[in-house]
Amino acid sequence: MDDLQIAKAARLLPPTEVAGAMGLDPALLEPYGNDVAKVRLDAIEALADRPKAKYVIVSAITPTPLGEGKTTTTVGLGMAMARTGRKAVIALRQPSMGPTFGIKGGAAGGGYSQVVPMEKLNLHLTGDFHAVTAAHNMLSAVLDNHLYQGNETEIEPHSITWRRVLDVNDRALRNIVTGLGTRVDGVPRETGFDITTASEVMAILALATSLTDLRERLGRIVVGYTGEGKPVTSEDIRGAGAMAAIMRDALAPNLMQTLENTPALVHAGPFGNIAHGNSSIVADLVGIRSGEYLITEAGFGADMGAERFFNIKCRASGLVPDAAVIVATVRALKAHSDKFKVVAGKPLPEAMLAENPDDVTAGGANLRKQIENMRLHGVSPVVAINAFPTDHPSEHAAIAAIAEEMGARWAVCTHFADGGAGATDLAEAVAEAAEEPSQFAFLYPDSASLKEKIETVATKVYGADGVDYTPAATKQLDSYEANGFGSLPVCIAKTHLSISSDPALKGAPTGWRLPVREVRASVGAGFVYPICGDMRTMPGLGATPAAHSIDLDEHGEVVGLF
Amino acid sequence: MDDLQIAKAARLLPPTEVAGAMGLDPALLEPYGNDVAKVRLDAIEALADRPKAKYVIVSAITPTPLGEGKTTTTVGLGMAMARTGRKAVIALRQPSMGPTFGIKGGAAGGGYSQVVPMEKLNLHLTGDFHAVTAAHNMLSAVLDNHLYQGNETEIEPHSITWRRVLDVNDRALRNIVTGLGTRVDGVPRETGFDITTASEVMAILALATSLTDLRERLGRIVVGYTGEGKPVTSEDIRGAGAMAAIMRDALAPNLMQTLENTPALVHAGPFGNIAHGNSSIVADLVGIRSGEYLITEAGFGADMGAERFFNIKCRASGLVPDAAVIVATVRALKAHSDKFKVVAGKPLPEAMLAENPDDVTAGGANLRKQIENMRLHGVSPVVAINAFPTDHPSEHAAIAAIAEEMGARWAVCTHFADGGAGATDLAEAVAEAAEEPSQFAFLYPDSASLKEKIETVATKVYGADGVDYTPAATKQLDSYEANGFGSLPVCIAKTHLSISSDPALKGAPTGWRLPVREVRASVGAGFVYPICGDMRTMPGLGATPAAHSIDLDEHGEVVGLF
Repeated sequence: MDDLQIAKAARLLPPTEVAGAMGLDPALLEPYGNDVAKVRLDAIEALADRPKAKYVIVSAITPTPLGEGKTTTTVGLGMAMARTGRKAVIALRQPSMGPTFGIKGGAAGGGYSQVVPMEKLNLHLTGDFHAVTAAHNMLSAVLDNHLYQGNETEIEPHSITWRRVLDVNDRALRNIVTGLGTRVDGVPRETGFDITTASEVMAILALATSLTDLRERLGRIVVGYTGEGKPVTSEDIRGAGAMAAIMRDALAPNLMQTLENTPALVHAGPFGNIAHGNSSIVADLVGIRSGEYLITEAGFGADMGAERFFNIKCRASGLVPDAAVIVATVRALKAHSDKFKVVAGKPLPEAMLAENPDDVTAGGANLRKQIENMRLHGVSPVVAINAFPTDHPSEHAAIAAIAEEMGARWAVCTHFADGGAGATDLAEAVAEAAEEPSQFAFLYPDSASLKEKIETVATKVYGADGVDYTPAATKQLDSYEANGFGSLPVCIAKTHLSISSDPALKGAPTGWRLPVREVRASVGAGFVYPICGDMRTMPGLGATPAAHSIDLDEHGEVVGLF
Repeated sequence: MDDLQIAKAARLLPPTEVAGAMGLDPALLEPYGNDVAKVRLDAIEALADRPKAKYVIVSAITPTPLGEGKTTTTVGLGMAMARTGRKAVIALRQPSMGPTFGIKGGAAGGGYSQVVPMEKLNLHLTGDFHAVTAAHNMLSAVLDNHLYQGNETEIEPHSITWRRVLDVNDRALRNIVTGLGTRVDGVPRETGFDITTASEVMAILALATSLTDLRERLGRIVVGYTGEGKPVTSEDIRGAGAMAAIMRDALAPNLMQTLENTPALVHAGPFGNIAHGNSSIVADLVGIRSGEYLITEAGFGADMGAERFFNIKCRASGLVPDAAVIVATVRALKAHSDKFKVVAGKPLPEAMLAENPDDVTAGGANLRKQIENMRLHGVSPVVAINAFPTDHPSEHAAIAAIAEEMGARWAVCTHFADGGAGATDLAEAVAEAAEEPSQFAFLYPDSASLKEKIETVATKVYGADGVDYTPAATKQLDSYEANGFGSLPVCIAKTHLSISSDPALKGAPTGWRLPVREVRASVGAGFVYPICGDMRTMPGLGATPAAHSIDLDEHGEVVGLF
C-alpha cells in the first residue's frame, strides 16, 4: 500500500475524542470538517493549572536531500508513547502546497507513521497558509498604494524589502516588475514573490504567543526605509490592523491525529533557512498542558532547526526543553563519509546499499557534532536510528556505537513499517532522558551584539573558525544595531546539507569560516537573518512535477499525492 | 447600531438546526467553525425525490454606484417568506476580500437584513476563494513551467490569455513582467494579475453541476494558442488534475443563516461584467429541493445579472425560474432622470433628497425596460420598492404607478430597518407571481452564431439599434466559431451603470449601437465574452481604504468592517 492508501484506510476518531484524550473540553474546539478542528486560544488559559508535559524536540543529523524521517519519527514516537502507557501530543509544521505539487510530495509523515487525513494536511487544512498569503499581500497592496497615493512616509522605493507571496512553486515570479501600464496602474518597480512559507507573516504566526502579541508583531514589520535610513513599519503605513483581522482565526492551532489516534497539533510552517523552521508556539502552549509528553519537530539538521528551536522559539515562548531526539540513518551517515552522492528524485547509488558499517562509522563525525550541539544547550540527546529495509544490523550497531561513545541514549526504530510498535524502545529512551534535570540554557544572551551572536552560533554550533562579513553585511548589521534591532536573536540562513555553509562539505567540517554575504531582518517575527550562500525563497517546478499526476479519480477522491 | 454590531447581537442557530429546517440530514454537513457548514455534494442526490421549490431571481433596475439593495432584499424576502408561513432558502454570492478592504466594505446585506456571521462571510468563509486563487495560480505555474521546460505544445507566448489572480485590490499587479533574473528564473513575458473573482476558475466553480463536471470544465480552460491558432488547454499542459484536487472541497456550498435564521447558501462569486455574476449552481441544486422558495440574487442590473442568470446559469443547470424580483429605489430612479450625479463614497446631492415624485417618474424608463427584460424571458416580474429613510410616500407611489402601468406586481419594503417583517408584502406578491405558469425561455438557442447571440442581447435586452465590431473582434469571433466555441452562450462585458454601453446614458437609452472592442472566451466556464468599453479586472485601493481602519480590538474582535 502507498502512503495515501494507508492513510485512507485509517480509522479516525472524531476530533472531540482526540481532544478528550488531551483533557480538552469539546467547547474549546472549532470543527473544520468532520476530522479536523481548531483549538480555541482560550484553551491556553483554560489549561493553565495543569502540570507541564516533558518537552521533547525531534531533530536530526545533517540530512541527505531525501530527508531522514524527522516527521515519521515524531509521529512514531508519539504513538509509541501511547503504546508504553504515556500520554503524548505531537506538534508539527503544516506543509506548503508548493512542494506538494512539486517534487517533494506531501509531508504528513509516511508509511505507518502519518498524520491524517493526509489530503487535508497536504492541501488547504483549515486555510492558515491562505490567511498568511492574504495578510502578506494585503500589506503589499497597502504599501504600493502608499507609494501611489503620495508616499507620505517618504519611503525610498529601492529600499523596500517587503515582497509578495504565493503558496506555489513558480520560478517566473521570483523577479518581476510591477506597476506597469499607465499612470493609474501604480508606481513601477522591481520586486518579486516568495513562497508563502518564506513570508515573515508565517514566522510571526509561528512565534506569536497570543492574539495581542500577533497584532504587535504584525505592526513591527519593517517594509523598507526612508532616504535617511529610518525604518518604515506596517504600522506606519496603516496595514497592520487589516493583516491582524485576516490572521485572527489562523492563530488557533489545528488538531489532527496520527494513524493510531495520537493527538497531533499541526500549525504554521515557516521556512527552515531564512526563518526558524519550527511549528507554532501557541500549539506548544496548548500541548504542553495536554499530556505527559509534548513532542515537536524542528526543520533540517540539529545545527539549524534545533538551534533555532532553542535560541529563537524557546526564547519567545519561555518553554524549556527536556530532551532532544536526533534522527540518524544509515544512508545519511554513509553520505557523510563523502564517498557517495545522493540526489533528490533519483535512486540511491547501488554501492550505498551494500552492507558496510565502516562507511557508517566514517560518517560519524556529523552525528557526534549534532549530539554535542544538543549538550551545548544543556539538553539530553537521544539518537533515533531510523531503520530502512535496505539497512543491515551491523550498520545500526555502528550508529549505536557512536551514540554510546558520546554517552547518548539510542534506539533503533521501525515506525515507518510498524507504526508506534516500532518506536517503543525510543519512547523508553526518551522518557529516561527527559527525567534528567534540565540544564537548558540559551547559547547567547539578548544583550550580545548581533556579530557576537552570529559568531557564537558559527563557532560553537557549526564548528567554524570564525565569520567573514562582506562590507554590505557589516553596514547592515551596524544599521540594525543603530535602529534598535540588536537585541534580537539571529537566524543564520545557510545550506541545510552541511553543518558548514558549503553543501559539498560532509561530516563535521573544520578549518573554515562562515561567509556572511548580506543580512536581513524580520523585525516583526523577531530575528535578524544573516545570509550565507544562495537562499532560494521561491522554488520552481521540475520537468515532471507532481502537479502533472495529481488528480481526482472517478469517485472524486484525490489521487497522486504521496 | 452599525451593521457589525447588529450582526454580532444576532442569535445564531447551530448549522445542524438550520439544515434541519431545510430537511437536510446533519450527516450531510461538514462543519467549518461552530456557525458555518459546508453541505456535502451527496445532498443533491439525497434530495432528488423532494418537490422543487419555486425559483426566484432577485435583480434590480440599473443601479447607482452605491447599489440599490439586492442583497438586503434577497435576505429580507427570505426572512419574510418564513414570517408568512413559507419555507424559504436564499442563495448568495460570497463577497471578495478585495472590496472588503477597499472602498466598498463587506457584502453580507445590511441593517436588519444580513447574513451572519458577517466577519466570516466577508473574510475567509470556508476558504473557497483561496482555493480558486490557489488552483488558478497552480495552472499559471504549470504554464510558465511548460514554457521553461521546452514548450512541448508550441504555445505562442504572446497568445497566452491565462494570467494570475489574488483576492486583493492591488493596482500594481495589473501589468507586470515575470520571468526576469537569470536563465533559471523562467521565461520573461508580459502578464498580470486579476482579482480572484475575475478568475475563470471562479466562474467554473459557479457553473459546475457536479465534481465530474468541475473536473471537465477545468480541463477545457484555454490558456493560449499555438502559432497556427490551435487552442492549448489546461489538459494539454497537464494542469487540470492538480486544479481539481485543489478545488474539490470548495465545490460543496456553504450554509449560513440570516439574522432571523433563514438558511442561506453562500457560494462562489464570479465577476459581474467579464463573468456571469451569479452564485453557484450546486448551491441552487441543493436549495431547490430544500424548501418552498429558493431565492437567489444576480449581480448588477437586470440587463446584466438576470440576463446571464437566464441564458448562462439556467442553461447550465436546467433549472427554471418562476418569478423575478426587480429592486427599485427612489434614488436610482431619480438618478435615471439624468438630473443628478451619484458618486461612490460621496453623500447624495442635497436636491436629490427633497420630495419630488416627478423626478422618480422621469427616470421610469429604466424600470419599464427591466420589467420588459424579465418578460422577454417569460418570467413574472415583481417590483420591490426598497425604502430608504429619506424617501417620501409620494415617491414610492410614483414607482408603484410605473409597475401598475406595466402590469407588474409591486410592494414597498423596509427590511433594512425592520428585517423580515418589512418585506411581507413583497413575499405575498412574489408568491402570487410564482404561481403563474412559467413561460421561461432562453433568449437565443445554442445553435445561433456568436454574432447572432450578441446582437440578440444587444437589441432585445439593451435596446441597441445594432452591434459594431472592431476588425479584431470579428476575427476573434470567427476563430472561436472555427475552434468549436460557437455553441457557447455570450456574456457581454459592459458597464453596469447604464443599460447601454455608455455609463453616462441613464434611463433606457435608444438610438445607439453596441461597440464590441474585443472578444475573449472562458471555454471552461462555458461562455464567450465580448468586451464593450474598459473592463477593469483588478481594482485599486483608494487614498483612505477600509484596510487602514480594519483592526482587532482589545478583545480580539474584528472592528472596522462594514
